[in-house]
Amino acid sequence: MKILVLGAAGMIGRKLVERIVKDGGVGGKPVSGMLLFDVVAPKAPADAPFPVEVQAGDLGEPGRCEGLVAGRPDLIVHLAAIVSGEAEADFEKGYRVNLDSTRNLFEAIRAIGGGYKPRVVFTSSIAVFGQPFPKDGITDEFNLTPLTSYGTQKAIGELLLADYSRRGFLDGVGIRLPTICVRPGLPNKAASGFFSGIIREPLNGKEAILPVAETTRHWHASPRAAIGFLLHAATMDTAPLGQLRSLTMPGLSVTVGEQIEALRRVAGDTVAARIRREPDPVVQGIVAGWAERCQPERAQSLGFKAETSFDEIIQVYIDDELGGRVPG
Amino acid sequence: MKILVLGAAGMIGRKLVERIVKDGGVGGKPVSGMLLFDVVAPKAPADAPFPVEVQAGDLGEPGRCEGLVAGRPDLIVHLAAIVSGEAEADFEKGYRVNLDSTRNLFEAIRAIGGGYKPRVVFTSSIAVFGQPFPKDGITDEFNLTPLTSYGTQKAIGELLLADYSRRGFLDGVGIRLPTICVRPGLPNKAASGFFSGIIREPLNGKEAILPVAETTRHWHASPRAAIGFLLHAATMDTAPLGQLRSLTMPGLSVTVGEQIEALRRVAGDTVAARIRREPDPVVQGIVAGWAERCQPERAQSLGFKAETSFDEIIQVYIDDELGGRVPG
Ligand SMILES: NC(=O)c1ccc[n+]([C@@H]2O[C@H](COP(=O)([O-])OP(=O)(O)OC[C@H]3O[C@@H](n4cnc5c(N)ncnc54)[C@H](O)[C@@H]3O)[C@@H](O)[C@H]2O)c1
Ligand SMILES: NC(=O)c1ccc[n+]([C@@H]2O[C@H](COP(=O)([O-])OP(=O)(O)OC[C@H]3O[C@@H](n4cnc5c(N)ncnc54)[C@H](O)[C@@H]3O)[C@@H](O)[C@H]2O)c1
Repeated sequence: MKILVLGAAGMIGRKLVERIVKDGGVGGKPVSGMLLFDVVAPKAPADAPFPVEVQAGDLGEPGRCEGLVAGRPDLIVHLAAIVSGEAEADFEKGYRVNLDSTRNLFEAIRAIGGGYKPRVVFTSSIAVFGQPFPKDGITDEFNLTPLTSYGTQKAIGELLLADYSRRGFLDGVGIRLPTICVRPGLPNKAASGFFSGIIREPLNGKEAILPVAETTRHWHASPRAAIGFLLHAATMDTAPLGQLRSLTMPGLSVTVGEQIEALRRVAGDTVAARIRREPDPVVQGIVAGWAERCQPERAQSLGFKAETSFDEIIQVYIDDELGGRVPG
Repeated sequence: MKILVLGAAGMIGRKLVERIVKDGGVGGKPVSGMLLFDVVAPKAPADAPFPVEVQAGDLGEPGRCEGLVAGRPDLIVHLAAIVSGEAEADFEKGYRVNLDSTRNLFEAIRAIGGGYKPRVVFTSSIAVFGQPFPKDGITDEFNLTPLTSYGTQKAIGELLLADYSRRGFLDGVGIRLPTICVRPGLPNKAASGFFSGIIREPLNGKEAILPVAETTRHWHASPRAAIGFLLHAATMDTAPLGQLRSLTMPGLSVTVGEQIEALRRVAGDTVAARIRREPDPVVQGIVAGWAERCQPERAQSLGFKAETSFDEIIQVYIDDELGGRVPG
């Protein structure tokens, strides 16, 4: 099995590559080679049991997608995107990266023809949904009503994925990721950053700012769960999907208050006390339009799994990023 | 008010132009000029009480959209599209005409800037919906699940319309038209053609072929209702739409059997006897995925109106196309 990972230098991409290298295969199938691509040069993994090639460049470059699929990868994991905040700030860049690059990729695959039909895993987002929501959570039949350009671009990607799959050009699975929490690394400027920040920073001995009320509810899964989604989407039987190629992933609906309580249980009062309330009406306004809760019945019935408590989500961060040690 | 009509030589375009010329205005506002565009040269209406310019060309030509919006029309009615069957047969042409041209148009509008924000009426279709449907009909919250490339292209058009509206580049209203029935003119190759054919041909003394069962249920409105939708969308207050810019239009859910009964009531047994049953599994397969019934509550509450009986729909055809005379 040959694998192409686009956006391989990103947070999820790096973890995915690491996991595949560790496993030596995907879903029990051995990997014969991997091509990693990103606008930021991806780091080649050490000790991979199969050849790994690394390329840096922009998916929007003429001929780039054609070159990337020329080796006819069996699995393409498409993670390359700019985030919500950047797509909102730079309208043209958002459409260029998040829409045109996706379409370029699908067109490059279609151009190969001759029965070539790779599995394509497309990372969509719950940002395809916008208020007003059904009271009991977003069902699998709920309309896509994005309230951001990023969400619009992801929703269009889902529609293209379904049509290219229906026409037999590729075998697509779109996964609508929850907000991935706890995101490792430095704080970033995403409006959603605080959901991870209020856990990660205190665990690392630093102060975190909470710009919203503790009653704010949101839909989360860990990076480890996200990698599980990707690997399952990479190998699942797609026949039961029919024409509905995109799935809302399982996750956990918790309030910020519940996140903080979990942090207190897992790491103690001193750590939880490192959160400073600093209400920010702008962030509050953005977050108010976001998904609070989903009912991901299709994905669950198809075998996708996520955490069931926020304590678990914090524990994943401690295990995977802090070497398993709960700091004081 | 300056108006630009794209796809002005089509069935709906011709009727819309005729009506605006007759009324001399739109929603009580006088028209100061009109530009008609189509790949087939539109006919300039006789006796228009305002200047009418006619241009022929392809919306996909470089610079074409920029040229068309350079006069800063206040209202743009975007009807240009290729139909379902053609978009399915020619994948590339479908995306070029139905998706790229729409995006070119929106980009040309955005490029003008400086507060220019025309009302854009985009004609979408119930083809954005695909099976499986809710039992009681398609609600306003139902997911867009197109099962054709045409439906995919229309759904993407809706998403772009919403995002460009949200960003303030245009003031969009998307209207999901029912199947327009009775379509005047010659029989065409659309899979939906028989819905009109079984009424139009018998009324004109000719035999019509019915390829599906009489139990086949579908969602209809007359051409006159469609023009009403367009004119209402052109002048309505868009504030109540919020971010949800596309609306399922009202229509009438009837079976083919009910259509035939209405024909018998309106035009008699001799006319209704001109329908020949010739089951076609291919057409049956296509039609099986189509919308049977909608619950267009939002559109109705916003003042959109359609016929409430199929007798009425037949009468519209007799009035508008046959000079009001019921043929024998
Ligand atoms: N992390 C989340 O909470 C979350 C939630 C929903 C969806 N997603 C989606 O999952 C995917 C991966 O998320 P992530 O958190 O790893 O994001 P990330 O920002 O860490 O990684 C995305 C990668 O794409 C690369 N990229 C951007 N533009 C590119 C271009 N033109 N050509 C090539 N590469 C380009 C970036 O350099 C980056 O390394 C993205 O598509 C994202 O939209 C993430
Ligand atoms: N008639 C229906 O039942 C129905 C139902 C749902 C939606 N619609 C939509 O309503 C709109 C009008 O429908 P109609 O029945 O009048 O269709 P039509 O086919 O009669 O008219 C469409 C017009 O667009 C023109 N056109 C096509 N490609 C073009 C291009 N590249 N540049 C410029 N012009 C181009 C065609 O020449 C044609 O005159 C279409 O967008 C259609 O998809 C129609």
